[in-house]
Amino acid sequence: MRALVLDGNVQMRADYPDPTPKAGEVLVRVLRAGVCETDLQLIRGYMGFSGVLGHEFVGVAQTGRYAGRRVVGEINCACRHCDLCRRGLPTHCTNRSVLGILQHDGAFADVIAVPQDNLHPVPDDMPTDVAVFTEPVAAAFQIPAQIEIARSDRVVILGDGRLGNLCAQVLAGLSDRVLVIGKHREKLAIVESLGIATAALGDLEVRRDADIVVDCTGSDTGLPTALSLVRPRGTIVLKTTVAGQQTLAWAPFVIDEITLIGSRCGPFDQALDALSDGRITVAPLISGRFDLSDGVAALETARTKPVLKVLLDVADA
Amino acid sequence: MRALVLDGNVQMRADYPDPTPKAGEVLVRVLRAGVCETDLQLIRGYMGFSGVLGHEFVGVAQTGRYAGRRVVGEINCACRHCDLCRRGLPTHCTNRSVLGILQHDGAFADVIAVPQDNLHPVPDDMPTDVAVFTEPVAAAFQIPAQIEIARSDRVVILGDGRLGNLCAQVLAGLSDRVLVIGKHREKLAIVESLGIATAALGDLEVRRDADIVVDCTGSDTGLPTALSLVRPRGTIVLKTTVAGQQTLAWAPFVIDEITLIGSRCGPFDQALDALSDGRITVAPLISGRFDLSDGVAALETARTKPVLKVLLDVADA
Repeated sequence: MRALVLDGNVQMRADYPDPTPKAGEVLVRVLRAGVCETDLQLIRGYMGFSGVLGHEFVGVAQTGRYAGRRVVGEINCACRHCDLCRRGLPTHCTNRSVLGILQHDGAFADVIAVPQDNLHPVPDDMPTDVAVFTEPVAAAFQIPAQIEIARSDRVVILGDGRLGNLCAQVLAGLSDRVLVIGKHREKLAIVESLGIATAALGDLEVRRDADIVVDCTGSDTGLPTALSLVRPRGTIVLKTTVAGQQTLAWAPFVIDEITLIGSRCGPFDQALDALSDGRITVAPLISGRFDLSDGVAALETARTKPVLKVLLDVADA
Repeated sequence: MRALVLDGNVQMRADYPDPTPKAGEVLVRVLRAGVCETDLQLIRGYMGFSGVLGHEFVGVAQTGRYAGRRVVGEINCACRHCDLCRRGLPTHCTNRSVLGILQHDGAFADVIAVPQDNLHPVPDDMPTDVAVFTEPVAAAFQIPAQIEIARSDRVVILGDGRLGNLCAQVLAGLSDRVLVIGKHREKLAIVESLGIATAALGDLEVRRDADIVVDCTGSDTGLPTALSLVRPRGTIVLKTTVAGQQTLAWAPFVIDEITLIGSRCGPFDQALDALSDGRITVAPLISGRFDLSDGVAALETARTKPVLKVLLDVADA
């Protein structure tokens, strides 16, 4: 089958072996996939991953409970028997693999093997181009699953990219004072078109008055900026993962009693509901579309151009 | 008056000018003071402080509501009118000074000026050697003021020093599974004599199963160790403040959805209650005693010897 494979560098392979499903896994024929900031980080060495990239996808289940139906899939493949699984934290399973990220081939391919328990059927009336956003929208819904957000909370989202936009949309449903800070006029214009306030990073008067700051920059400059904006006793939600080590003065966390909370994967059911009832708008985020065979060019575009979501067309439904 | 003054290096001065109380401040004649890890950090350049050191003290109020009585004093001097003060966060006042730490002379002196509102009277039957621990015990009580602790939570305290010991005693009142990890057999023996489990850092089998880890190491090795012990979705309470910048990989906070919460000053009323009813034992912590005139030697002892709390005798009651 075709597959976009990371092995030091990224190559499009036409002859990659079809996946062999493990116990509990079903094969899913991929229809569409989305490029995520994490894919770009993986290429830069984050997690030391090698294999088929891609973890945002819509496909058609080939077997199992949803055979013949369109599905989306949660990315953490849990063992279901370790301490953390038994504790109800399967996304933190000690023995987990992660689709396209950790010891499990991903979705930038014609076929992917996914645990049956990870699959969610896509409502029939939801376009595939919408459903492909389920994974990042779920990641945005993880924020209110972790912290309380009040209507009057001043919420700053750092980053006007894919995830920043989706987090802003989710949090704008909970707070009346959401502000997205970014560097790209075009991307900020899309946020504004959704009725959410924005500011250009360069124009910003730095005031330490945010109750909550969400770092969606995908850059190691995000956390220091978040610290300069959050009020004492405020909360920083860290979504950014970067490879390597970073340097920062830790004392301000103590002096200002800041809470930092790391936030990763979230609830697919809430994401599908919000995409279904139109609370989250994704059409303006699609800024590039490539055939899977042009996957290398798709990744290069996502890396170098001020684009939002790049989609890969893998097959027709 | 006599005063132990930091101005690049530390000097004992016999001719330091008496403090002039500002509006709302009263003069307190110091009886006893305690040396804190923060004092040692200040000498190493933390906060860029110059002035009289010392923020743990018992004294006799010279004027005001408690004139003639023994008092202890909260260390943050708030303006009472900024946004944060009006929000009920006077310890985070934008315009604050901090006794012996930030733009306000401290307690290693014959007399200190303290805002009246910061003073708490010491119960008549509480020895001065006990009351001098109010400030660090309050800092330990700040932890349960910030996070919920369940009886079954596995709590690890990193650091067997002054603050680690007090945090362990406070948290052992809330959890049945408190473990103190340290490097010093003598200090760990004191923790054990209080009925709290201990482990030597070198002997530790590192398992990521702590629900809560409290970093009281006073060292930049504390936070990386805490990260190696906390379970996914667990909480690290950061008490350590160190000067300068530190290097760490931030991605694990996101991958494991760790919460980091900085923790500083705490409730004096709870500390005085706990010292009064014997829930917190401080006598075994006193390991050195110097006259104020020998303050330079006191600081040197606190810095170089594996000691716990060094007290300064300033005057008799």
